[in-house]
Amino acid sequence: MTPAVSLNTATVKQWTLAQCIEGCARHGIPGISPWRDVLQEMGVDAAARRIRDAGLRVTGLCRGGMFPAADAAGRAAAIEDNRRAIAEAAALGADCLVMVCGGLPPGSKDLPGARAMVREGLEAILPEARAAGVTLALEPLHPMTCADRSVLSTLKQALDLCDALGDGVGVAVDVYHVWWDPELAAQMARAKGRIAAFHVCDWKVPTTDLVFDRGMPGEGVIDIPAIRAMAEAAGWRGGVEVEVLSRAVWAMDPEEVLKRVKAAGALC
Amino acid sequence: MTPAVSLNTATVKQWTLAQCIEGCARHGIPGISPWRDVLQEMGVDAAARRIRDAGLRVTGLCRGGMFPAADAAGRAAAIEDNRRAIAEAAALGADCLVMVCGGLPPGSKDLPGARAMVREGLEAILPEARAAGVTLALEPLHPMTCADRSVLSTLKQALDLCDALGDGVGVAVDVYHVWWDPELAAQMARAKGRIAAFHVCDWKVPTTDLVFDRGMPGEGVIDIPAIRAMAEAAGWRGGVEVEVLSRAVWAMDPEEVLKRVKAAGALC
Repeated sequence: MTPAVSLNTATVKQWTLAQCIEGCARHGIPGISPWRDVLQEMGVDAAARRIRDAGLRVTGLCRGGMFPAADAAGRAAAIEDNRRAIAEAAALGADCLVMVCGGLPPGSKDLPGARAMVREGLEAILPEARAAGVTLALEPLHPMTCADRSVLSTLKQALDLCDALGDGVGVAVDVYHVWWDPELAAQMARAKGRIAAFHVCDWKVPTTDLVFDRGMPGEGVIDIPAIRAMAEAAGWRGGVEVEVLSRAVWAMDPEEVLKRVKAAGALC
Repeated sequence: MTPAVSLNTATVKQWTLAQCIEGCARHGIPGISPWRDVLQEMGVDAAARRIRDAGLRVTGLCRGGMFPAADAAGRAAAIEDNRRAIAEAAALGADCLVMVCGGLPPGSKDLPGARAMVREGLEAILPEARAAGVTLALEPLHPMTCADRSVLSTLKQALDLCDALGDGVGVAVDVYHVWWDPELAAQMARAKGRIAAFHVCDWKVPTTDLVFDRGMPGEGVIDIPAIRAMAEAAGWRGGVEVEVLSRAVWAMDPEEVLKRVKAAGALC
C-alpha cells in the first residue's frame, strides 16, 4: 500500500508556510511538518487554524534541541527555547517535536561532555513535554554532522537515550541519516512502538555538500522501501515525511517539487 | 611520550615517492606509508631499496580493497589487483596492507549485497596474504563514504569481520573515520592486539568536501590524544601515521607540510 505523504516545509524553502499549506491542499498531500522559522513568521495561532481548516495532519514540528553550549547561560537559553518549541508543537497538535540535539560547543573537542549536555537538556524539558502531551522525537543525524549539528549519531544511541529517559520520548528515523548503519535492522526492530516520525530523501552519488545536497526519494542509492518495511514491522503506520534539504531542489519550481513529493509515497 | 611519526604519501600529493623518501630522511620522520600509484611510478624494487637505504619503516601500503563490482568479471579483476597489492606490500616489508573495502557497485542500492562482496573478496585473498606474511588492515571509513568508497563503516563492523576471518587480519584506525562513534571506546578496547595501523588527521568545522577537506592534526575538533590513549591501552605501540587528504594541504609548500607532520607527534 502506498503510504500517506507529508511535506516538510524545508523541502520548499522558497515558500511561506501559508503557501505550503495551500500547496498541500491543492496537491492532495495530507500531512505537513513545519519548521519553526516559517511557523513564527506566520504566527502560531494563525498557522494552527489554517492547517486545521485545510484538514492537514501535522506530522512533526522541526525542531527542538541544540542543547550544547559553551557556558551555563547558553545552555539555559537553549532550554528556554525548547520550552517555546514544546508550546508551539502543542498548539499545532503536532505528532511530535523533532529533536536535532546539537553538536560540540564552539572550540570544544569534548564529545562525551556534549553528549552529557544533550541528555541534561532533554531531562530538563521532558516534564513540560509530558505535561503538554508532546512527544520528543530524538533524531539521530548522520555522523558527518557530529561536530556542528548532532552528537546523537546512531539509532542505537537514540534508543539508549529513550530507555534512560522513559515515557514521552521516541525516535525520528530519517533514511538519509541511518541508511549506512550496519546495526540498522537490529535497531529498527528494537524501536518497536517508539518511532515518532519517518523522514525520507535520498543519498546522491556524488554528494557535494554535507548539509544541502540531499536527493529527492529515488534520486540516490538508499533502499528506501527496505527501511520503510523495517519501520512498518516496528509498528509504524504514519506514512512518509519528505524532507529534502537541497540547493538544487530549492532552485526548482515549487509546484513541480510538490508533484514529486506527492509521488514519493509510491517510491517509498 | 611523543609517538613515532610516519608520513602517508597522500599528504604530499605534489611529490613523487623519491621526494617523499628524501623528505622523511631530511626531516627526521622515521616512517613512511606509500600509496600504490606513486609506488608503481617509481617501481617497487627501486622503492623498496631506497626506503631501506633511508632507514625508514613502512607503516603500511595504501591500499587494497575496492571489492564490490557490478559483475563477476569486475569482482575477479578486483581480487587480482589485491593479489598484486599483497605482493607489493611484501616486497616493501610493509607492516600491513590497508584495505579500503569499496562502496556500492554503480547503480546498486544493495548494501547487504555489497558487504557480502567485501567479505568474499577478503576470503579470496586471505590465503595469499597469510602466505606472504602481509597483515590485511581493514579500515572502517566514515559513513559519509558508504556509497562510493567503503561499506565498512564502523570499527565494530571491522572487528566482526576480523572475528569471522581469523588470522592475518587486523584493523586500521583512522581518527577521522571513527571519532564520532558512540561505540568507539568499547570497540577500541575490543581491538586489543588487532590494531595494525593508526592514522591521524582532523575534522575541520566547517568541512566543505566529503573527501578532500581533512585538517592537519590540531586544526579540527577531534580529541586525538584521547583516541591514541585508547589505542595504546589496546596494545598499539606503532606511533601515528599522518594522512591528510586535503586540497588546502596540497597547495602548501611540501617542506612546510613535513615540518608539521614531524611536529604532529607532539599533538597526538
